[in-house]
Amino acid sequence: MASTPTFEYYNDAWAAKMIGRRSRRGIDAYLGVEVTEFGPGRLVAGFDVTEDLITMIGNMHGGCISALVDHCLGVVMYPVMPEGSWAATTEFKINLLAPVSKGRVEATAEILSMTRRLAVVRIEVENALGPDSSQRRMVALAQGTCTIVAPKGAA
Amino acid sequence: MASTPTFEYYNDAWAAKMIGRRSRRGIDAYLGVEVTEFGPGRLVAGFDVTEDLITMIGNMHGGCISALVDHCLGVVMYPVMPEGSWAATTEFKINLLAPVSKGRVEATAEILSMTRRLAVVRIEVENALGPDSSQRRMVALAQGTCTIVAPKGAA
Amino acid sequence: MASTPTFEYYNDAWAAKMIGRRSRRGIDAYLGVEVTEFGPGRLVAGFDVTEDLITMIGNMHGGCISALVDHCLGVVMYPVMPEGSWAATTEFKINLLAPVSKGRVEATAEILSMTRRLAVVRIEVENALGPDSSQRRMVALAQGTCTIVAPKGAA
Amino acid sequence: MASTPTFEYYNDAWAAKMIGRRSRRGIDAYLGVEVTEFGPGRLVAGFDVTEDLITMIGNMHGGCISALVDHCLGVVMYPVMPEGSWAATTEFKINLLAPVSKGRVEATAEILSMTRRLAVVRIEVENALGPDSSQRRMVALAQGTCTIVAPKGAA
Repeated sequence: MASTPTFEYYNDAWAAKMIGRRSRRGIDAYLGVEVTEFGPGRLVAGFDVTEDLITMIGNMHGGCISALVDHCLGVVMYPVMPEGSWAATTEFKINLLAPVSKGRVEATAEILSMTRRLAVVRIEVENALGPDSSQRRMVALAQGTCTIVAPKGAA
Repeated sequence: MASTPTFEYYNDAWAAKMIGRRSRRGIDAYLGVEVTEFGPGRLVAGFDVTEDLITMIGNMHGGCISALVDHCLGVVMYPVMPEGSWAATTEFKINLLAPVSKGRVEATAEILSMTRRLAVVRIEVENALGPDSSQRRMVALAQGTCTIVAPKGAA
Repeated sequence: MASTPTFEYYNDAWAAKMIGRRSRRGIDAYLGVEVTEFGPGRLVAGFDVTEDLITMIGNMHGGCISALVDHCLGVVMYPVMPEGSWAATTEFKINLLAPVSKGRVEATAEILSMTRRLAVVRIEVENALGPDSSQRRMVALAQGTCTIVAPKGAA
Repeated sequence: MASTPTFEYYNDAWAAKMIGRRSRRGIDAYLGVEVTEFGPGRLVAGFDVTEDLITMIGNMHGGCISALVDHCLGVVMYPVMPEGSWAATTEFKINLLAPVSKGRVEATAEILSMTRRLAVVRIEVENALGPDSSQRRMVALAQGTCTIVAPKGAA
């Protein structure tokens, strides 16, 4: 099956700085998204399903998962692009597989294809349950496209 | 082009109650989502782009738009289903067309196809700018599928 | 709802030449695809559901519709791009709504968003039945993204 | 990453009969699609890129790949459903990564999630080149949803 492409660039220092860092603003801050693993073309990021995220029906809104997917799509691109480049989430498609009401939500994003202009990223989202997060089930599957914008003045 | 299907059911009272109502919990509460129009198979919902939603880069996170799309997908289904039915967002695809940094974000959702088990919904998202929200540009286009679950005991 | 963007270029002569012309090779030739209407950012194309296209189960293979969608995605772009440009179908998403077993299949493609690099196209596919094709029902809805590649040497 | 779910049913005899068999009608017959591997929730199917499939531009029409994806989506479901069930391709999303002009096109389809009513299938399409098909590159990535219809009279 799909082998991750090799990457010409990889800004290890930038990736390392992202681990465990939380945004102070924006929807990723609201959700409490944290990157826990980062490598060339691959990251793991997630958040705890707190009471605040649960709707009156008793489940977490699916929008929390699609926002996480959107977030990962952009972040996974940064360290593999030439410095000064910009990655825009052009589009993505997501299947929501099962409701989530507790535990932790964790997305694994992988760049499966990358050219100078476009990348295709696949994201799998699991719900981790149990005291040690060892019970895991797939709750969403996504596939998205990022457009890479070269820095001004680049060839 | 696509004509909206006719609907066997329409719970006008439920739809009317949704207008202007805000959730107290969940990501739609965080965003401040409000339904402003509701009809059979169609709704308009949106939120103001407040400072809190803007990331360090100066734009709103795309995840706010995908969460809005996900929200509309579920809500537009309710009044057209037999009472006690449940609509699950099975999947959606979204194209993000332009960055948003101010004004209001407004989604128009339309059910384009509906059977006893499945519905296809199309969502267009605009950014409304200017004192009277009269400057509008398309910022996202989405298409999604909802699964309709009949109440227990139904034929 | 969505207003078609205005287009800087429109090669009316090229579009006019496409009307009624059939390919001699490739899957569009196999299907017998013919463009019947063409305008700036919009086309109608279709084919007759011949016996050859019907599988043992008695319906046309859904792949015929997805091939038609893919075809329209590329063709609708040509007259609105600067001469020498190339449009690649980056991705699309399609919902198949109902089986098709006779009559004619007709797709209406519309460019809903276009920048120098990307365009988003929406396609609606109908099955036309009856002696004058007047009975129509929606059989597929699609949304896709085209990447525009400028001619070599262009700014 | 994603582990294939376990399947309650698997009709090994039906799957075995599909290996190497070609349809006599429909778009899969035109393409010459052949299943070469079949297991519970997974199949490999492909076709040779013959001269007939090449358009005037010199590449194979992307519609051939989307038709193959659509075909695999349906076929992979059959052996894992209770006898008499029907699988309809509800929707799929495909990214086309690179042009194809020769060799063989081969899709690997995997069911990643399955309930009584719905399944999510992922498809990776490679172009195999060289005398022993050993040079392979990814040319498309897809994700789709099938609706499972139980036989009439089933609980």
